[in-house]
Amino acid sequence: MSADPNCIFCKIIAGQIPASVVHQDEHSFAFMDIAPLSEGHLLLIPKLHCERLADLPPELAAELSRQIPRIGQAVLNAMEVDGFNVLVNDGEVAGQLVKHVHFHFIPRRPKDGLGYRWHAGEYAEGRRDQLQARYQKAMKGLGSRVTD
Amino acid sequence: MSADPNCIFCKIIAGQIPASVVHQDEHSFAFMDIAPLSEGHLLLIPKLHCERLADLPPELAAELSRQIPRIGQAVLNAMEVDGFNVLVNDGEVAGQLVKHVHFHFIPRRPKDGLGYRWHAGEYAEGRRDQLQARYQKAMKGLGSRVTD
Repeated sequence: MSADPNCIFCKIIAGQIPASVVHQDEHSFAFMDIAPLSEGHLLLIPKLHCERLADLPPELAAELSRQIPRIGQAVLNAMEVDGFNVLVNDGEVAGQLVKHVHFHFIPRRPKDGLGYRWHAGEYAEGRRDQLQARYQKAMKGLGSRVTD
Repeated sequence: MSADPNCIFCKIIAGQIPASVVHQDEHSFAFMDIAPLSEGHLLLIPKLHCERLADLPPELAAELSRQIPRIGQAVLNAMEVDGFNVLVNDGEVAGQLVKHVHFHFIPRRPKDGLGYRWHAGEYAEGRRDQLQARYQKAMKGLGSRVTD
């Protein structure tokens, strides 16, 4: 697997930095976040060094995500919680610090004060259609089937 | 595809409730959230009705997630942003409202006031090892290879 010698997650995968590993297979690796948002906070990462989600080859995104149900069940079982958040911060503006794609698994407990800041809005008349058209154009450019 | 007649997302997939669709294929479906946290907020869902991440058959999690890099790139291109969050609220305690697995794609812009509430802590001496052992036991019970 291609590694970035300056990437802390690549060093963890290589065993050069110790970590509390909970899963690994050919393509994916999961370990405990040492600065947890809650007890049992995990990170699931691809072994391949990719900075952004859009850099992940689709096949690798698939292989990595095949672990999501199992890791999710492990969070529920091992931490004895009823739910969790999965979070990816993609890009600095979104809070990404380590430049290696990572999926946070954050166990949730009642009244823990965690969660996403939820300020739901609504679209002005016509605005959603405008944005949908931009998405459809973008998706077409990326080779996806689009319907409306 | 198995659908739940009481599920709003199943109704959207079936075309019984209108939505601003931006992608669909055999297994996955993406559309604009009508109560957006930011302009261009999307939802990526499996066509199969599954309430929780742990209910997703691994193969379906893989097929669904194959779209993550492309949808992510579409968010960057269509919304002209530099980043976004991917978020799953799994379980009521984690903020899940609609009982059909959904991945939020939330475009991020500077000083937008969004993001996850980030109160990172640290583990007391020995606590991380205890939790790792619980995870290893849980993962073994789920049939994963575990290393330490």
